[in-house]
Amino acid sequence: MGDRATRLAGALASAGPDGSPLDGLLVTNLVNVEYLTGFTGTNGACLITAEKRVFLTDFRYAERAAEIEGWEVEIVSGQWLFGLAGRLEGRVGFEDDQVTVRTANELRGAAEGAELVEAGGLVEKLRRVKDADEVEKVAAAAVMTDELYGLLIERGLAGQTEAEVDAWLAGWMREQGAEPSFPPIVASGPNGASPHAEPGPRRIGPGELVTVDMGIKLDGYCSDCTRTFATGTEADLDSLSREIYEVTLRANEAGLAAVKAGAAGDEVDEVARAVIRDAGYGENFGHGLGHGVGLEIHEAPRLGPSSKDELMVGEVVTVEPGIYVSGATGVRIEDMVLTGENGVARTFSSVTKNLLFV
Amino acid sequence: MGDRATRLAGALASAGPDGSPLDGLLVTNLVNVEYLTGFTGTNGACLITAEKRVFLTDFRYAERAAEIEGWEVEIVSGQWLFGLAGRLEGRVGFEDDQVTVRTANELRGAAEGAELVEAGGLVEKLRRVKDADEVEKVAAAAVMTDELYGLLIERGLAGQTEAEVDAWLAGWMREQGAEPSFPPIVASGPNGASPHAEPGPRRIGPGELVTVDMGIKLDGYCSDCTRTFATGTEADLDSLSREIYEVTLRANEAGLAAVKAGAAGDEVDEVARAVIRDAGYGENFGHGLGHGVGLEIHEAPRLGPSSKDELMVGEVVTVEPGIYVSGATGVRIEDMVLTGENGVARTFSSVTKNLLFV
Repeated sequence: MGDRATRLAGALASAGPDGSPLDGLLVTNLVNVEYLTGFTGTNGACLITAEKRVFLTDFRYAERAAEIEGWEVEIVSGQWLFGLAGRLEGRVGFEDDQVTVRTANELRGAAEGAELVEAGGLVEKLRRVKDADEVEKVAAAAVMTDELYGLLIERGLAGQTEAEVDAWLAGWMREQGAEPSFPPIVASGPNGASPHAEPGPRRIGPGELVTVDMGIKLDGYCSDCTRTFATGTEADLDSLSREIYEVTLRANEAGLAAVKAGAAGDEVDEVARAVIRDAGYGENFGHGLGHGVGLEIHEAPRLGPSSKDELMVGEVVTVEPGIYVSGATGVRIEDMVLTGENGVARTFSSVTKNLLFV
Repeated sequence: MGDRATRLAGALASAGPDGSPLDGLLVTNLVNVEYLTGFTGTNGACLITAEKRVFLTDFRYAERAAEIEGWEVEIVSGQWLFGLAGRLEGRVGFEDDQVTVRTANELRGAAEGAELVEAGGLVEKLRRVKDADEVEKVAAAAVMTDELYGLLIERGLAGQTEAEVDAWLAGWMREQGAEPSFPPIVASGPNGASPHAEPGPRRIGPGELVTVDMGIKLDGYCSDCTRTFATGTEADLDSLSREIYEVTLRANEAGLAAVKAGAAGDEVDEVARAVIRDAGYGENFGHGLGHGVGLEIHEAPRLGPSSKDELMVGEVVTVEPGIYVSGATGVRIEDMVLTGENGVARTFSSVTKNLLFV
């Protein structure tokens, strides 16, 4: 983990606006702090310069902070911004996408000897490429998610309410000592037409599509997987539902085939989107194709119509096209994969994408 | 709920820096948005002027937004800050304690016709005084918490690990359709010396103190209550534990007796702190005495050595002194009360504060 701070320190020389040099970086986003130090408390910050690695936290975390290797630990109290401000020298970057206007003003007022420069996103960029340890943690979360999909398929869907299925899913995760990486989505029948439906009292009937979108956070890392199931028997399902399932699956596969190092986020999105558009459902796919996954369920890069993020080897991204027909039904199919030099290096989910009647 | 926006609009005339007037206020803190509109989604904002009440959200929440009474609803998409910016006129306050530097810069760049002024904390100030409906919601959450304390006392503590007790507490809350207002604290033996201990694998033995700090979030509103229990029999407990329990209880009662409208946060804190200091444990009480509770588990006002918040009639605050003896043991006793004109108007918890052996 120590090399993460070293890589960050190495990037400071051109990390300011327009590639200008920074003398230091103040990291206050707690996810970034966790990435750099392993610290998982609710109050901590890092100050990094070419020579120094200082981790600041309060007395509650003194014992835990002492276990962090390679960082000078400072226990601060009260208005600790002011204590920190005295340490700042030269041009110091701060995470302008995380620090509030008020805190920045206070910090600038107290840090007389330093120039505070907007420099958010540096750690997020490092976080995009996962090391081997991170990939295994993501994989472990995905394996547990696959297991839960297996149990869900055995258990069936029809006859239960969405909220009941949701509570069972989240409860199972917690029994394993894990937690949902986001509240599971269970969207049945017409509710499937909303990409972000919240599970409700609707009882799942036969002959419906049910979209289940869930992930598990295990050992700090997230998984994310969506499958759309049918209820009842093949004879119960209408032709629209069948058609949009088939189109979404083709879009998912086309998107996966386009994932590789060097591809831009908008290019990969377009490959999948074209499949849906060509089938006449272009207006029914109103969100981006995918996103990075790691310590956070949504992180860089993005795959979408306006994304210029260029994929790199070793990123974990989702590919999740959907077709949503308002008032009627919806489908989304999502896989999480590792990007490789020439294509997908690893697919984390093993749940079938054949339409199952459960 | 509509009168909340009216009260806020009425305060605009002197809501800017140094009491300067504002033409409008942009509310982006989602808890404040919920307070004003009842909206509970993950994306929404309010724009308030003397005449206008505009609620902005995205397509996912179109149906829910339509149910909000008294607000003009605008469904926005994509880079919606830019769409919003065109609506801003004159001096518009924004929540500088919530808006990031990056967002403020983008907003200022796009809002050509308006001057954006730092004005955080206005809604938080309104939220301090609870209306009758809010008080009943807090009370309902507290009653459920009392019920759980009753079950915990029946069930006992010794022989279980802290983590097992924690999981049972959180699980019971979820079974009731509620959720923890924060992860419950179960701190036994020497772990009780840390005010924010996280429940761990330590098995609770006989003759120990165990601090349980928990709250329930029900219908949007939080409760918060701490009790310290003993395990084993009276004969098992050491004299230090007995003494600090007795001192903490006296400090709790003294603090409660000092709560009334007009008292300053530092005055109430000092009344309780003096009891602990006079008993020789001044160095062992390293946190503030209490805080407001409502939609958030921690909100204004604060009771603490540096708090100048003056209490008002109708605030819900906690009084939670503690004594923490590193490496040995700890006690905290916390009640949540409603402030009245001449003292506590209502105590929300009914769990005994006599030291129980469970």
